Amino acid sequence: LIKAGIVGGTGYTGIELLRLLSQHARVDLKAVTARAEAGMPLAQFFPSLRKRCDHLVFSRPDSEALLQCDVVFFATPHGVAMREVERLLQHKIKVIDLSADFRLSDPRVFASCYGMEHACPHLLAEAVYGLVEINRESIPDARLIAVPGCYPTAVQLGFAPLMHPMRQDLCLVEHQSLIADVKSGASGAGRKAETHTLLSEMAENFRAYCVQAHRHHPEIVQGLRLMSGKSDLGLTFVPHLAPMIRGIYATLYARILPKARTQNFQSLFENFYKDQSFIDVLEPGGLPETRSVRASNQVQIAVFRPGDAANLVVLVVEDNLVKGAAGQAVQCMNVMFGLPESTGLEQIAIWP
Amino acid sequence: LIKAGIVGGTGYTGIELLRLLSQHARVDLKAVTARAEAGMPLAQFFPSLRKRCDHLVFSRPDSEALLQCDVVFFATPHGVAMREVERLLQHKIKVIDLSADFRLSDPRVFASCYGMEHACPHLLAEAVYGLVEINRESIPDARLIAVPGCYPTAVQLGFAPLMHPMRQDLCLVEHQSLIADVKSGASGAGRKAETHTLLSEMAENFRAYCVQAHRHHPEIVQGLRLMSGKSDLGLTFVPHLAPMIRGIYATLYARILPKARTQNFQSLFENFYKDQSFIDVLEPGGLPETRSVRASNQVQIAVFRPGDAANLVVLVVEDNLVKGAAGQAVQCMNVMFGLPESTGLEQIAIWP
Amino acid sequence: LIKAGIVGGTGYTGIELLRLLSQHARVDLKAVTARAEAGMPLAQFFPSLRKRCDHLVFSRPDSEALLQCDVVFFATPHGVAMREVERLLQHKIKVIDLSADFRLSDPRVFASCYGMEHACPHLLAEAVYGLVEINRESIPDARLIAVPGCYPTAVQLGFAPLMHPMRQDLCLVEHQSLIADVKSGASGAGRKAETHTLLSEMAENFRAYCVQAHRHHPEIVQGLRLMSGKSDLGLTFVPHLAPMIRGIYATLYARILPKARTQNFQSLFENFYKDQSFIDVLEPGGLPETRSVRASNQVQIAVFRPGDAANLVVLVVEDNLVKGAAGQAVQCMNVMFGLPESTGLEQIAIWP
Amino acid sequence: LIKAGIVGGTGYTGIELLRLLSQHARVDLKAVTARAEAGMPLAQFFPSLRKRCDHLVFSRPDSEALLQCDVVFFATPHGVAMREVERLLQHKIKVIDLSADFRLSDPRVFASCYGMEHACPHLLAEAVYGLVEINRESIPDARLIAVPGCYPTAVQLGFAPLMHPMRQDLCLVEHQSLIADVKSGASGAGRKAETHTLLSEMAENFRAYCVQAHRHHPEIVQGLRLMSGKSDLGLTFVPHLAPMIRGIYATLYARILPKARTQNFQSLFENFYKDQSFIDVLEPGGLPETRSVRASNQVQIAVFRPGDAANLVVLVVEDNLVKGAAGQAVQCMNVMFGLPESTGLEQIAIWP
Repeated sequence: LIKAGIVGGTGYTGIELLRLLSQHARVDLKAVTARAEAGMPLAQFFPSLRKRCDHLVFSRPDSEALLQCDVVFFATPHGVAMREVERLLQHKIKVIDLSADFRLSDPRVFASCYGMEHACPHLLAEAVYGLVEINRESIPDARLIAVPGCYPTAVQLGFAPLMHPMRQDLCLVEHQSLIADVKSGASGAGRKAETHTLLSEMAENFRAYCVQAHRHHPEIVQGLRLMSGKSDLGLTFVPHLAPMIRGIYATLYARILPKARTQNFQSLFENFYKDQSFIDVLEPGGLPETRSVRASNQVQIAVFRPGDAANLVVLVVEDNLVKGAAGQAVQCMNVMFGLPESTGLEQIAIWP
Repeated sequence: LIKAGIVGGTGYTGIELLRLLSQHARVDLKAVTARAEAGMPLAQFFPSLRKRCDHLVFSRPDSEALLQCDVVFFATPHGVAMREVERLLQHKIKVIDLSADFRLSDPRVFASCYGMEHACPHLLAEAVYGLVEINRESIPDARLIAVPGCYPTAVQLGFAPLMHPMRQDLCLVEHQSLIADVKSGASGAGRKAETHTLLSEMAENFRAYCVQAHRHHPEIVQGLRLMSGKSDLGLTFVPHLAPMIRGIYATLYARILPKARTQNFQSLFENFYKDQSFIDVLEPGGLPETRSVRASNQVQIAVFRPGDAANLVVLVVEDNLVKGAAGQAVQCMNVMFGLPESTGLEQIAIWP
Repeated sequence: LIKAGIVGGTGYTGIELLRLLSQHARVDLKAVTARAEAGMPLAQFFPSLRKRCDHLVFSRPDSEALLQCDVVFFATPHGVAMREVERLLQHKIKVIDLSADFRLSDPRVFASCYGMEHACPHLLAEAVYGLVEINRESIPDARLIAVPGCYPTAVQLGFAPLMHPMRQDLCLVEHQSLIADVKSGASGAGRKAETHTLLSEMAENFRAYCVQAHRHHPEIVQGLRLMSGKSDLGLTFVPHLAPMIRGIYATLYARILPKARTQNFQSLFENFYKDQSFIDVLEPGGLPETRSVRASNQVQIAVFRPGDAANLVVLVVEDNLVKGAAGQAVQCMNVMFGLPESTGLEQIAIWP
Repeated sequence: LIKAGIVGGTGYTGIELLRLLSQHARVDLKAVTARAEAGMPLAQFFPSLRKRCDHLVFSRPDSEALLQCDVVFFATPHGVAMREVERLLQHKIKVIDLSADFRLSDPRVFASCYGMEHACPHLLAEAVYGLVEINRESIPDARLIAVPGCYPTAVQLGFAPLMHPMRQDLCLVEHQSLIADVKSGASGAGRKAETHTLLSEMAENFRAYCVQAHRHHPEIVQGLRLMSGKSDLGLTFVPHLAPMIRGIYATLYARILPKARTQNFQSLFENFYKDQSFIDVLEPGGLPETRSVRASNQVQIAVFRPGDAANLVVLVVEDNLVKGAAGQAVQCMNVMFGLPESTGLEQIAIWP
């Protein structure tokens, strides 16, 4: 059994990690930390864990129990993991960080996005970006995984088949002006008490936010530039909040090049993802819905070329807390420890 | 492996049975019937099953495959099972009926509630009412199980500790005038297209319905009279629709008798359910929420005696599609076939 | 024109008052105060007011403009009005307080409910409780109105026809053990940022709260005791939160006395409210829904006597921000200043 | 007073027309027809009208009362108005059609979009497209108005300032590949009972639909081509359903031409709409939300040029049942009859 710990277990990614790991056949959950709730049974804080996870009690952040783990997950706000990872690595503990701390390779970009200096810039180069379908080979040897953000996961997986330079497909679309119109449920904003995510503010309401600049924009661009090898790749990214708890729906637009080598985008996507157990390219005409992947680690993708239009439309759905956070983290762990990739992640979506 | 079939797999209890049974370690799902969809892959009808249940195709209702099953579940509207059960029993197939056909012991009550003559009244006496926590001993030998309705499950479980005659507790509350104020999500109304369950009609709206008479009222009263041995037990039952998909919240009121043998209702409830893996009596002051049991088979119960009031208040939550339907049916199957009762039902609730 | 001011204009009752008063043909809105937002245009804070209320700017709480008003509304948290009302009264300004400060006649009850000493107990006796349908005669001469809470409005209006001692109807129901099972939308909890009212916590969720004791309980009991003249009147009050923004649904239960003088409760209710423009007793069998009165000042009431049951069931719906707060306050103002009672309150509910 | 009639008063645009017209100071509502409900009081069908519109009863579709009207609104499904308009025009009755029958100038396009031959093609040329802000001058003399669809209203208003040839601004963006990513609430799908708009299917779910081709696409393209004078204007239009009742949120993308005459898009939009009482261009950085215009006739628009991106982003919100249907129809009537354009349309949005 893999001995696992969680730092910061009281947020939405925390409870989702708890749900997945406490039902994972190869994991022994050793410690879950929470500063303010230290000493409280987890099942008291999260009544959904009652009778299912009654033995665990929140530990203090400096709990010694973490040091006996094989792997530690950080489900903390940004700025925490970068101050604690080094100590864990010194104890030969693998780290899977669900926060933003190690996603951006350039510490100056991190500083400008997150408003703080990076406390551990020398580990940025070593950290492996945990978008498993793209970076699977680098994960087994990694000591430190940066789990992608929820938006970046959906957007990168949707554009990836159009990006890959090895396949000379880059000539398919104009890479300088990609568009990602993305819609998210409220849980992406976390459990923090804020007026604008109250039910009375969000229900029966739809809105864009951070249109001028969102923290996930540089993360996505960094990933797509790496995939495509094009340093002038450009992206317009508009995130929106939809009145629901879970789910990300990405509607991606790319202008098809007149000289594109193939017009068969359906086959391109199917082939690109044919061996990926969590990526599901729908049949032509199939329409993804966020509920089709609710509470599961699946991603569903559809490709359209409407009418005589110049644009390719790619539709992507994921559960932001699973494939967009905790599920992807567990998927990374499985790859890291040589387990079948879908261990503990076979849950069927909740429908309706 | 238990060979299982489902008759009527396209409704909400159908998909929930599919979700549970296709992940059940001891079940081999052999046939799922649907009249209009015969020949269609299940995963085409329910995209949540893609990559998780890709091999199954809907069969015709008269499929021979059903006859090779050990157990057949009916997830049909009322009026179907009562015409087909006998043939299955003759083939030594156990039947677990999620519809109302075998819940009421008196065919005249059935006829008046459901507007049709009962087609198979001679099996009513044999059918075992599948409220496992109350009738567990009768289930292993049963050939035919009538799975309780969603409202009756919550209401009976909430009143049961006050009813049981063996414990001489009946003197605790006035049994002639119990009150059940119950709130349900929309999925209890099923997948049928009807104006009044459109999102535009139900969202941002709350309402009672069937206040004068609801079909579940006689089912609840029948159960409580059996438990208490009091033929004059009376119940005011007001069902409401809340703007959400899943969940039942029952707020129960019972007037405490001045001469009640005990005032410690908390202990009464804890003791009554202490050996039940799916019933969870909260600590004093604990408040159930429907999300705490969303997509799980758990029931959470709390007992209050507000202020100087004359009334005991019992709060009960369940997921209407799991403990109120498919999960309870699987629980019955587990008991029937001698499996550990929680096999395939250990899922942790989805939170948030 | 009536010169009106609002103290505390940034909450949900504040914006609702702004919506109603800025469209009221007989009102000139002179000042709206808000401590933190002083100097900000109202329409910047509430974009719904753009192009409709562009001239107003939030004033400081000590704004002199308040002193030029004929009437000042307090839409503040409890504890504010009681410290400021006296100064306004001295300036011959009428006060309509939407907070709890002057609802309870006994300062000790206020202190125990709201956790603070009452700063102005000598005005408690003078304050008129603004439940217009019950206290209309006292309002024209009042200097200070205490607008009822949202729950108390619904519950008292629902029980009132059963209570009134003048009509000798009190013998209709057992007054010692009334039950009010009430469901509210999230806006009743206000705009304050709190974890438990986030959309991610409240959507797809239903729960009771404050079951042991809620601040509105003594307010309701005080009102019903006054109406009935029965000092031993008892009430079990269980408030719930439903996943929606607006609306209160009260399901009331009263045990009918065997010796009740009338069994025709429908007529009793129709007669009691026959001259009330905002109270609408539905035809027999009619079912209220919260959306039927959404964003309007109407109340809809239905009376049922299910089956052979011992209990009378009364269903009441209101919009908690209109008849349960701002609308009732405007209704009080209309009566106070001799205007037709429904001036500015004729809005038709938003449907769907 | 303008004598007005409504044909087809039982859908969502019907009830919204009823709400607006019954509160319109210059309208006398004479007849509301409904085939199946003829003879039923309106307030029985729509309880929100109780005590506010108690005198009206649904008439039969062939009601003579229609012929005494000055103006008749059609709130019918497509295919009805085109068979009845001519008779009304012959009686000198003005017609405002909220259906799609007279929106498309080419009957072949109508036939291919709506699956039926046009029954009245000779009136297509005469019908005036009722997008008031663009076509105001043509409305006073019109006999027949085709009220734009909900999506076309939002998308055309958002692109219009970039299109207008008179101002030589067309060189601002690439007109061949515009993109409209639009999100709608469920009420846009109407009151018809269909599985896919049940609350259980739509709540907690987000999805695109009709990606390959939507009926509103040719309507939008027709309008934009007229405005711009560019017959090769192209549009990729992806409609989505959001889990809410009301509201349309349009996120529009247009690639800015390197040689654009101006870079000050904010001023461009402000100037273009500076005299329009229902169009509100937000300050730089302002973010529209659908709730800011809920139940009102306002449109809010914001313009962004994110980062170094090549694309202009225009955000537009409207209430699909008001400015996207009934409100715009009333606005047309006001202009047609020489009333101030905002008569009966001054309602402030419902917030929250």
